[in-house]
Amino acid sequence: MSTVPDPQPVHTPSAEPADGTDRPGIEFGVVRPPDEQAHRQAVARHDGLTKPAGSLGRLEELGVWVAARQGTCPPRPFDRPRVVVFAGDHGIATNGVSAYPSEVTAQMVENILTGGAAVNALAANAGAGVRVVDMAVDGETNRTISAHKVRKSSGSLNVEDALTAQQAHEAVTAGRALADEEVDSGADLLIAGDMGIGNTTPAATLIAALTENEPVAVVGRGTGIDDAAWMRKTAAIRDALRRARKVVDDPLVLLRTAGGADIAAMAGFLAQASVRRTPVILDGVVVGSAAMVAEELAPGATQWWMAGHRSVEPGATLVLEHLDLRPVLDLDMRLGEGSGAVSALPVVNAAIRVLAEMASFAEAGIAGPTADEAAGVSPTDAAD
Amino acid sequence: MSTVPDPQPVHTPSAEPADGTDRPGIEFGVVRPPDEQAHRQAVARHDGLTKPAGSLGRLEELGVWVAARQGTCPPRPFDRPRVVVFAGDHGIATNGVSAYPSEVTAQMVENILTGGAAVNALAANAGAGVRVVDMAVDGETNRTISAHKVRKSSGSLNVEDALTAQQAHEAVTAGRALADEEVDSGADLLIAGDMGIGNTTPAATLIAALTENEPVAVVGRGTGIDDAAWMRKTAAIRDALRRARKVVDDPLVLLRTAGGADIAAMAGFLAQASVRRTPVILDGVVVGSAAMVAEELAPGATQWWMAGHRSVEPGATLVLEHLDLRPVLDLDMRLGEGSGAVSALPVVNAAIRVLAEMASFAEAGIAGPTADEAAGVSPTDAAD
Repeated sequence: MSTVPDPQPVHTPSAEPADGTDRPGIEFGVVRPPDEQAHRQAVARHDGLTKPAGSLGRLEELGVWVAARQGTCPPRPFDRPRVVVFAGDHGIATNGVSAYPSEVTAQMVENILTGGAAVNALAANAGAGVRVVDMAVDGETNRTISAHKVRKSSGSLNVEDALTAQQAHEAVTAGRALADEEVDSGADLLIAGDMGIGNTTPAATLIAALTENEPVAVVGRGTGIDDAAWMRKTAAIRDALRRARKVVDDPLVLLRTAGGADIAAMAGFLAQASVRRTPVILDGVVVGSAAMVAEELAPGATQWWMAGHRSVEPGATLVLEHLDLRPVLDLDMRLGEGSGAVSALPVVNAAIRVLAEMASFAEAGIAGPTADEAAGVSPTDAAD
Repeated sequence: MSTVPDPQPVHTPSAEPADGTDRPGIEFGVVRPPDEQAHRQAVARHDGLTKPAGSLGRLEELGVWVAARQGTCPPRPFDRPRVVVFAGDHGIATNGVSAYPSEVTAQMVENILTGGAAVNALAANAGAGVRVVDMAVDGETNRTISAHKVRKSSGSLNVEDALTAQQAHEAVTAGRALADEEVDSGADLLIAGDMGIGNTTPAATLIAALTENEPVAVVGRGTGIDDAAWMRKTAAIRDALRRARKVVDDPLVLLRTAGGADIAAMAGFLAQASVRRTPVILDGVVVGSAAMVAEELAPGATQWWMAGHRSVEPGATLVLEHLDLRPVLDLDMRLGEGSGAVSALPVVNAAIRVLAEMASFAEAGIAGPTADEAAGVSPTDAAD
């Protein structure tokens, strides 16, 4: 993947900026499809392994998926899976849409840096590395993580744009650069995570805009907010949506209007991962909202993404339907940080090992089905 | 777990053998409940970790489940998880209920021994060891795995009992001894797997008998058998069920009538794991049928089991409902060998690490929710 040069940019969603400035749009390279030959080889290899054809269900599909994205069969174990957590505050948090004060964002960033967050434990279990980047934390953070910082917090999207045109451009560009950095450093699987008080409000706004749903269909009780906070959040989304719907056809302007620096960077990151032919496991509702925009920035990008899990947030299911993705796990998670995606990684690793390590019927000298039976039946009758 | 002595046996389901012989019943020790204090400690610990309370969903429940079974909080990583695959042939296989000849059972046993089967790849991914035991393979197998062998194949249950009373007793006793061996050797998590041409026919019969369902509700197309094989299989289950329904209240006689040496041994193994306070991850339809009988042999045994996955076989879902278990994974698997259970193990390991490794709010110096909000809300608003 890292050896594939960037193709010439061909997609320019914002060549004519909709905001009236002379700020250029973001250009992403063309997204090319996964390797069809490796896909076919993996399907054929599965049929010859010592199990009933298809009996490992979605584990077989996941193995084929990885083989096609790696362009090789059998697929290789991931050498350097990486989680990048995009941190940022949101002005809307001061409107009582969240139960915690914005200062918690910086504290949780520090917690990730010192290894105490959920994503650290889950990534360690999966053999993945974790990186956190400050895109718009409302305070000072360690310089090692603030190189791409665009601003302190993002605008309160119920009354103002989340970002200026230049900031939106910078944030998407930063996300693109982060994907390039990771791939150039050998990352062969990428996961985006989110961290930021208030970030489900812009996420829900983006999802409502892009799936043409009303706020009430998108806002959940995911965080456990009470009735009053739920109503404030829904009202904020309604107000932001009035402006967001008008710019839904321009992904960069949409991110500026109703996103935030963290979500804009995620969108750039996810789009560029696909341009760089690097597979991605998507997380829940915040990353999902960025993914929908990324598909607009780089059409076809979804081909390089699998869904790690189904978050309990209603908006997350709308994203899965919109992108036509079926999640690996469904464990009622709603944390963010990339936690659901990285929880699915060991299952994906299992799928790789099955395809790479199992013996074939020929190798094991095992009899095939009796002549009068259909192909694809069980050698064990253990339909378990 | 291995340090807990066996309590005095108190449960004797077959003290008066129903078959008119003087063969004694099987006595299992009493099953004691998991540790309530460790359960409460784990729930409380989760509430103090740096995430919204409950936001990791079922991962939190799984961590609490393990803590209560280990009797310690935080839970420990499993030191020696073990898969024991119970192999056996079934006379019913000659009736065309399976697509493969019985000789495949012995070949697949050899494949497991040499590391080429699905369970080997999946167990390696999960850090679990694999053992295969020949309970009733219709042929000679390596002496290292045939120490507990009861007979060659089991009777064709549509026209005869699967086992004699003595053989059923021997098989359950062997399963019990295998659980003891594993626990005494340090196993701290057990998984039973199945391997045997024709074994879903007795499994479906046991499930139909114990859940009071008709054969058509239990028999699936799981193995990919054609219409004719499906009808032969359903007819065989119908015939076996006429005799099985009459003895459904005596688990040992039920295993003799409609089980087989492999399934009987699994039942003894699963029951004894619970007596020995050792957690178990259940696999799919064949292991599930044995688990239902094990709960009859050792009431309360289910407290020590979690369901690893939901097999596509209809009978497997009937088992989950009967035992009131919710599976970790739902990946359309139907292979057996313990493959679904061991695929879930890395997710359970993730749950352990979250509870063991995450920082608390106090340790990380992170602010709590604002005063006017309900408890249990998000510190990140990342309802993902």
